Amino acid sequence: MPKVAIVMGSQSDWPTMQNAAKMLEELGVSYKAQVVSAHRTPDLLADFAKSADDNGFSVIIAGAGGAAHLPGMIAAHTHLPVLGVPVKSRTMNGLDSLYSIVQMPKGVAVGTLAIGDAGAANAGLMAAQILATSDEDIAEAIKTFRAEQTSKVLENQELELPQ
Amino acid sequence: MPKVAIVMGSQSDWPTMQNAAKMLEELGVSYKAQVVSAHRTPDLLADFAKSADDNGFSVIIAGAGGAAHLPGMIAAHTHLPVLGVPVKSRTMNGLDSLYSIVQMPKGVAVGTLAIGDAGAANAGLMAAQILATSDEDIAEAIKTFRAEQTSKVLENQELELPQ
Amino acid sequence: MPKVAIVMGSQSDWPTMQNAAKMLEELGVSYKAQVVSAHRTPDLLADFAKSADDNGFSVIIAGAGGAAHLPGMIAAHTHLPVLGVPVKSRTMNGLDSLYSIVQMPKGVAVGTLAIGDAGAANAGLMAAQILATSDEDIAEAIKTFRAEQTSKVLENQELELPQ
Amino acid sequence: MPKVAIVMGSQSDWPTMQNAAKMLEELGVSYKAQVVSAHRTPDLLADFAKSADDNGFSVIIAGAGGAAHLPGMIAAHTHLPVLGVPVKSRTMNGLDSLYSIVQMPKGVAVGTLAIGDAGAANAGLMAAQILATSDEDIAEAIKTFRAEQTSKVLENQELELPQ
Amino acid sequence: MPKVAIVMGSQSDWPTMQNAAKMLEELGVSYKAQVVSAHRTPDLLADFAKSADDNGFSVIIAGAGGAAHLPGMIAAHTHLPVLGVPVKSRTMNGLDSLYSIVQMPKGVAVGTLAIGDAGAANAGLMAAQILATSDEDIAEAIKTFRAEQTSKVLENQELELPQ
Amino acid sequence: MPKVAIVMGSQSDWPTMQNAAKMLEELGVSYKAQVVSAHRTPDLLADFAKSADDNGFSVIIAGAGGAAHLPGMIAAHTHLPVLGVPVKSRTMNGLDSLYSIVQMPKGVAVGTLAIGDAGAANAGLMAAQILATSDEDIAEAIKTFRAEQTSKVLENQELELPQ
Amino acid sequence: MPKVAIVMGSQSDWPTMQNAAKMLEELGVSYKAQVVSAHRTPDLLADFAKSADDNGFSVIIAGAGGAAHLPGMIAAHTHLPVLGVPVKSRTMNGLDSLYSIVQMPKGVAVGTLAIGDAGAANAGLMAAQILATSDEDIAEAIKTFRAEQTSKVLENQELELPQ
Amino acid sequence: MPKVAIVMGSQSDWPTMQNAAKMLEELGVSYKAQVVSAHRTPDLLADFAKSADDNGFSVIIAGAGGAAHLPGMIAAHTHLPVLGVPVKSRTMNGLDSLYSIVQMPKGVAVGTLAIGDAGAANAGLMAAQILATSDEDIAEAIKTFRAEQTSKVLENQELELPQ
Repeated sequence: MPKVAIVMGSQSDWPTMQNAAKMLEELGVSYKAQVVSAHRTPDLLADFAKSADDNGFSVIIAGAGGAAHLPGMIAAHTHLPVLGVPVKSRTMNGLDSLYSIVQMPKGVAVGTLAIGDAGAANAGLMAAQILATSDEDIAEAIKTFRAEQTSKVLENQELELPQ
Repeated sequence: MPKVAIVMGSQSDWPTMQNAAKMLEELGVSYKAQVVSAHRTPDLLADFAKSADDNGFSVIIAGAGGAAHLPGMIAAHTHLPVLGVPVKSRTMNGLDSLYSIVQMPKGVAVGTLAIGDAGAANAGLMAAQILATSDEDIAEAIKTFRAEQTSKVLENQELELPQ
Repeated sequence: MPKVAIVMGSQSDWPTMQNAAKMLEELGVSYKAQVVSAHRTPDLLADFAKSADDNGFSVIIAGAGGAAHLPGMIAAHTHLPVLGVPVKSRTMNGLDSLYSIVQMPKGVAVGTLAIGDAGAANAGLMAAQILATSDEDIAEAIKTFRAEQTSKVLENQELELPQ
Repeated sequence: MPKVAIVMGSQSDWPTMQNAAKMLEELGVSYKAQVVSAHRTPDLLADFAKSADDNGFSVIIAGAGGAAHLPGMIAAHTHLPVLGVPVKSRTMNGLDSLYSIVQMPKGVAVGTLAIGDAGAANAGLMAAQILATSDEDIAEAIKTFRAEQTSKVLENQELELPQ
Repeated sequence: MPKVAIVMGSQSDWPTMQNAAKMLEELGVSYKAQVVSAHRTPDLLADFAKSADDNGFSVIIAGAGGAAHLPGMIAAHTHLPVLGVPVKSRTMNGLDSLYSIVQMPKGVAVGTLAIGDAGAANAGLMAAQILATSDEDIAEAIKTFRAEQTSKVLENQELELPQ
Repeated sequence: MPKVAIVMGSQSDWPTMQNAAKMLEELGVSYKAQVVSAHRTPDLLADFAKSADDNGFSVIIAGAGGAAHLPGMIAAHTHLPVLGVPVKSRTMNGLDSLYSIVQMPKGVAVGTLAIGDAGAANAGLMAAQILATSDEDIAEAIKTFRAEQTSKVLENQELELPQ
Repeated sequence: MPKVAIVMGSQSDWPTMQNAAKMLEELGVSYKAQVVSAHRTPDLLADFAKSADDNGFSVIIAGAGGAAHLPGMIAAHTHLPVLGVPVKSRTMNGLDSLYSIVQMPKGVAVGTLAIGDAGAANAGLMAAQILATSDEDIAEAIKTFRAEQTSKVLENQELELPQ
Repeated sequence: MPKVAIVMGSQSDWPTMQNAAKMLEELGVSYKAQVVSAHRTPDLLADFAKSADDNGFSVIIAGAGGAAHLPGMIAAHTHLPVLGVPVKSRTMNGLDSLYSIVQMPKGVAVGTLAIGDAGAANAGLMAAQILATSDEDIAEAIKTFRAEQTSKVLENQELELPQ
């Protein structure tokens, strides 16, 4: 049973949001990804969020662009931790998405990651970090991932001017 | 039975949003104002929006600040026209509210007014303009309001440097 | 006789603004589209706006970019509801258009939609929603459109990582 | 007969715009100041702008805040040079005013000054500089003003840390 | 032994960050608050972050303003989930803090909350939500908090225009 | 002897600034265009600006990008009217250029036009408008240009949806 | 003979810029502070900058607000390192100052510090750091300052919720 | 032994940062370039910065994008002057990088250059200017570079409209 749900407002968000999925796969964390639109399927959103705990999810990752209401509205319907990914928008480069997701009022929280691919990957990473607070295996997987990441930088420090 | 609903995310939005109420009163349009929080009362939001048509409302004015999801989520649950008022926020002067309200995706619309008091007053005015498309009395009231507004400017054009 | 007028500052705005026209066609609402430039044809603008009511229009959609004065100046000359569409500009991505349209002073209102294509489509949708306050057929058309839109999302929720 | 017209959208712009008047007085240039609202008195605006040349004006200074359409719409109705002053707005500190005034399309120009008091004063200065292209007296007055301004800085260069 | 560490760059961040502490107290979660400056005590930062897991912390909340490097640098030294709070800055209203915290590169994540007091309170809430993924008592406390929050809104929906 | 000087910080600004030249040619106004760099040739800048009046120039158009100091520094050395054109920059789309040019302090003015090509063309137009305050021929040329511009819009108002 | 020159566009910048002076005093570095206005005293600026090296200065700190041309124009006239401090402006909170100072073109550099008081203090610190590359005494003074700064944080880490 | 260290957060920053290297080569200043990631190799960062003085470096140039913590964290660990280059980011055009680098708190300074290639080149130039405060040869090289730069502009001032 997947522990992490990845939801997004539209199929067009998947190229961004699959970075969350890939990170979870790399860390050995099961997930389920689906489209849930805050504006076009608000009842589905409410049902999904209210039943997420009973359905076995521990963390929800939600990505959306523009007037990005999905992460905040899911958070409104559940006590599970919700991570928000601002998807880069066509006209404001994702600033509208970022502000819509991060500026939540007191009492309903969304942990927001960076705009775009890096943010989606880090949403996957942070979901794993949350699970790792009570799961030693995931904790080890994260430590290994981080150590390898560090090694890769250490092995590739040299730079040379093109002749 | 009031034709216009004015909703807002918090009691603290009322000093801004009462400008919508005052404009409607000035134009002789009945309204009902109440607090509906997208994040703290999402079920109330859905119920309110779904039943708004049956309850006799023709237009909904929604004001909110920060990650302002109220107008867009109401629009997601009704086919009535929804007007959004970005309430000035503490940390971004209402830019976050504006972007969260105006940048709706294709298929669910919010007609957005200016940030703050002027926007709230104009939401009342535009609600009346919408009703006036099928109500001659309101149309006349708007014309009178606008004519008086013009007269006031015309009567007070002169300016003098303080001595 | 068309109920909705679509005006824009330049032929170059038509690729954006035709999204309003397409939405109105989809909802069975008649419209007329033409170029009216606030800065290059200000007298035409005044004539157009002053006679819009007599010419049978009920709602006006106006799109413009940069220092986008068209929607606000049309609103200054009519009591009909005016919807504004910020067209994406070359140097500010439409932020200049958005601020020029949405930040109207108290007493003359423009209901503003999102920057660009989505905003234009939603201007068509909101014009229909306004007409639907007194036209059952249009109300039904909107409900059908919205229901189909919801169904399309529900039928396409699944996502899979590319192998 | 005054050579410079100072117009503004509202009495509330006068504390800012009187800096233009004061500068013109200092430089010995006659002016006339009045309120002309683009949105509340659009016909007055058109009449004013169309007759400005016949009324003997050579330069027009226009100040406005928010969706600041006044300078651009005056420019649309006259071939006289128009100088625009963005008045500081309550919610966007004048950025909305600045973008609305400066981002004019090709073919209708507004020479834009800084936001607020400094911009208003400089609009007066630039109006005088324009007149000075064919008026030796005003040219001399400007040179004197500038020389005195320089002297004042030169006489007050020293700075000391408070003990 | 406290489960949540609250760190901040300066004593002057405490009026903001104590909102995180208050929320944790309300939810019955133990915490420890201290000053750790990324720029003035970088070695303390590294020691603190590297030993946080061994010291029994499960979640770290870090608040900072301006070039806010504290949350990201703590995240660089630990696999524990790190929540970042952008403290409102004097010259950019916290936009600099927000961008410095949220725009982390792929591979090191910070879950970012809103700018200022609301964000700090929500950092406390989200830390509790993270712990609640494996602690039934905290989960119940959150549900109670959220239910009371909803009730308070439902009991105070009415609004009336001041006479 | 040319009446208008067009200067710019770099050869790379010419594709933008030639729009000023073209407009002046269209209006029959003589001009001279050259590169003057505020930062790389500050002495040339000072010499150019101080002698501009004696060299017969009546108006100076200055275009620059990034930290665009050219227009303001020319204005610091002459009492002739200076028009500034913000050239679109690579990293900030010209916002840095706009702010650097328009936000001049009280006492030294630059009339600023829009960012990029439209602004450059309008700088040419406004230079002509300034000269036209004492030159009937140029005034007539501007009126003709404006009338033709209006006619072109009036002849091309119709729009049709692509089949 | 002072090694560091502190210049600023106006007496009104001194409350900000004296933070640079205080830092230099704390580090035992001699300085001279004076007003030099890029726009009101451009010849003084050129003279000052061209003779700065001969006058024994090794580093120049320049602070200015709005269209802040002072640091960049001084850099244009000298090969000494120039540090720029964006002074907080009335209408844009110093963003205009920051962009005008930092966005220098290739070939003429300004090392830019933070907006306002902190930036001015750090300009003093960095001037000392520059001198310290060839002055052991100043290097020691900086190390002592930094060590004390660290100690102060370490001694004041504890925080307690107000009862 | 190289006097200048050029570090950057990632290999992908090298196309930008090599402009610093090229400028140093042009001015005859030795340098060493390497990758040091604030977030992925924080211990390397601390070691590098703490030993930079002993390793013979006099100036450090650090480039990074997004939440760009590298320059500020290096500055936290050394008393050597640190120059920061904001690398253009994918979603915010480098504004996030700029704010993260320039808005340092009082007591730890980073001299910030322009976003992107020009800023990197100028970081090289300013590093040379710093060394030149105690190295006559470098001072001469800079004067020559600047003189040639000026000559190139003076020889290429003419511009002609394409026929």
